[in-house]
Amino acid sequence: MENKNVENATIGHPVVTSEDLVNHWQGHRRLTRRVIEAFPEKELFEFSIGGMRPFAELAMEMIKIARPGIVGVATGKWDNMDDMPTPKTREGILELWDKVTEQIDAFWPQISPERFQETDVAFGQYENQIYASLFYFIDNEIHHRGQGYVYLRALGMTPPPFWER
Amino acid sequence: MENKNVENATIGHPVVTSEDLVNHWQGHRRLTRRVIEAFPEKELFEFSIGGMRPFAELAMEMIKIARPGIVGVATGKWDNMDDMPTPKTREGILELWDKVTEQIDAFWPQISPERFQETDVAFGQYENQIYASLFYFIDNEIHHRGQGYVYLRALGMTPPPFWER
Repeated sequence: MENKNVENATIGHPVVTSEDLVNHWQGHRRLTRRVIEAFPEKELFEFSIGGMRPFAELAMEMIKIARPGIVGVATGKWDNMDDMPTPKTREGILELWDKVTEQIDAFWPQISPERFQETDVAFGQYENQIYASLFYFIDNEIHHRGQGYVYLRALGMTPPPFWER
Repeated sequence: MENKNVENATIGHPVVTSEDLVNHWQGHRRLTRRVIEAFPEKELFEFSIGGMRPFAELAMEMIKIARPGIVGVATGKWDNMDDMPTPKTREGILELWDKVTEQIDAFWPQISPERFQETDVAFGQYENQIYASLFYFIDNEIHHRGQGYVYLRALGMTPPPFWER
């Protein structure tokens, strides 16, 4: 890799801007919301393949990462949400989802430009640069949502188009 | 969103550098390679759930995006690889995979810093900024690889850890 690219990027040519990154994340979250909605309520909480978690639990993992994650990224204070109970209805999960959407929009402008390349210990456990922790939050969501697509297909349903955000 | 962040990012604080992005992509590609290797050969080509494609075809989609994709990103010339035949063995797919890995490393340094925010029509069809097309290549791989994880679990096998790159 040529360092030239990296140096040039710092003097006027962002590869990805802060705004690009939050729009990218929220675009993925809009799609995941549609996947939660696509599940019949019973199957959202009960259907699984190969001993994996039902999609309600996968969606809760995303919420338990994103909700304290955006606060940690913006403030350096990492909460643990492991004991947050799973709502008993699809509507309850969607309400939590929407609260996290608002929280991301509220905290994002507090992230200083230099913060993205700082190293921090996310959730007190995962040492990484902030941009890499954010990539992890997003990638983990894409990974588990892709699993939800298989659940929907196995149930004979058509998932929402991957490219629509 | 505050424009301040975006402007500051352009005067000395990259959110993500060019090197970050290629390392991120190649890290995901190393994991996907391990998922291809994890499938028994027969199941790689034949196993599916809910009418979806076997993992060999999902891996070929990733190859058919990444191989012409990196050339298009670097040069602006977009080839179509739709007619590339699927190799008949796992080893054949892995050989193609490794060629793409080398190709990404070879072409990446040719991507100019200003290129990432340019708009281009990827594969002559998808108009987007270059960083967004690159995100799409990576996200599509994560999405389909997550589906491969379900196939492996349904086959009673343990997939490689998601967080290892």
